[in-house]
Amino acid sequence: MDYYFYAAPVQHLIEEFEKLPGIGHKTAQRLAFHVLNLPEEKVVSFARALVDAKRKTGFCSVCGNITDVDPCRLCSSDKRDRSVICVVQSPRDVAAMERIREFRGQYHVLNGLISPMEGIGPDDINIKSLIRRIAQGGVQEVILATNPTVEGEATAMYISKLVKPMGVRTTRIAHGLPVGGDLEYADEVTLAKSLEGRREI
Amino acid sequence: MDYYFYAAPVQHLIEEFEKLPGIGHKTAQRLAFHVLNLPEEKVVSFARALVDAKRKTGFCSVCGNITDVDPCRLCSSDKRDRSVICVVQSPRDVAAMERIREFRGQYHVLNGLISPMEGIGPDDINIKSLIRRIAQGGVQEVILATNPTVEGEATAMYISKLVKPMGVRTTRIAHGLPVGGDLEYADEVTLAKSLEGRREI
Repeated sequence: MDYYFYAAPVQHLIEEFEKLPGIGHKTAQRLAFHVLNLPEEKVVSFARALVDAKRKTGFCSVCGNITDVDPCRLCSSDKRDRSVICVVQSPRDVAAMERIREFRGQYHVLNGLISPMEGIGPDDINIKSLIRRIAQGGVQEVILATNPTVEGEATAMYISKLVKPMGVRTTRIAHGLPVGGDLEYADEVTLAKSLEGRREI
Repeated sequence: MDYYFYAAPVQHLIEEFEKLPGIGHKTAQRLAFHVLNLPEEKVVSFARALVDAKRKTGFCSVCGNITDVDPCRLCSSDKRDRSVICVVQSPRDVAAMERIREFRGQYHVLNGLISPMEGIGPDDINIKSLIRRIAQGGVQEVILATNPTVEGEATAMYISKLVKPMGVRTTRIAHGLPVGGDLEYADEVTLAKSLEGRREI
């Protein structure tokens, strides 16, 4: 007795969706049937967006961010302050920083963090290109804005030890309670950092 | 001051992901960057699967299921019992029924449920083709396996009123407690249905 499942092209699409992070079998099915119900031109436009995003983008040769022009718009902009470089882990962190509309400097995207556990050393992320950039002169401050995790802290420490001897001010983003957070539910380390970083009002 | 966000092809891909059901902005970003980190051939294969699933499939002219051959493999199979038709809402329900490996009959996929609230009437779903199929003779039982929801019940009732006068046995799948469920946490309607449908053991 052969039981019937999905038509091969449908099954194939479900499998492709399942390969995406955080997408399980049920969700993959739901997405595949959503696609089947779309008009063909919308499906083609989705497919084209996938291939275009991959083919038309690459890493900026200056800052390491993902870009469709090289150097990226941010690196070639004359409206950004070239004396401040904000060092982040990923292109998504650049977008997060830009969203606050406060920072007027430039970025350097590491595209990773030092993580001995995962076999990622300083040479596997964009640290050398950062040092080269600083050595060219004109940089007055390097803001280390990696995540407040073990890897993020270690990477920030590593970079600061290289940058400080170059006579450049090196800062780390503040740790503390998130706005709207609750003292009672904060973990001890965050609370300690928040106390340590207190400022006069 | 112009702030920088994602490169246009990346932004476009994020927007395409956001159009999918249940995918919010954060998840869309995560998926887009996952795609950017894939090798190009994998992205092309994903894009092709999308377009193929849409272009190479259609509805079976007999049962209404999604298929890449017409009539579908299930309708043309000589191993399936043509005297029993299981009526379901969607192709995903066919897959769910097939997974239990118990049912040997054929299917009829309504591709929707009657829903006056959403303006879906009996003529908007595959009811006429079901009646035509039954009128051709040879069908001894129609199992109404729509979901136990208001729309599913209404649709089952509507179909049974058309099919019964044709002298065909019409059955409805049982409602009751799901296996592994808990009496204490069952809703009243389910519990009542479960009592009503009790059988001797």
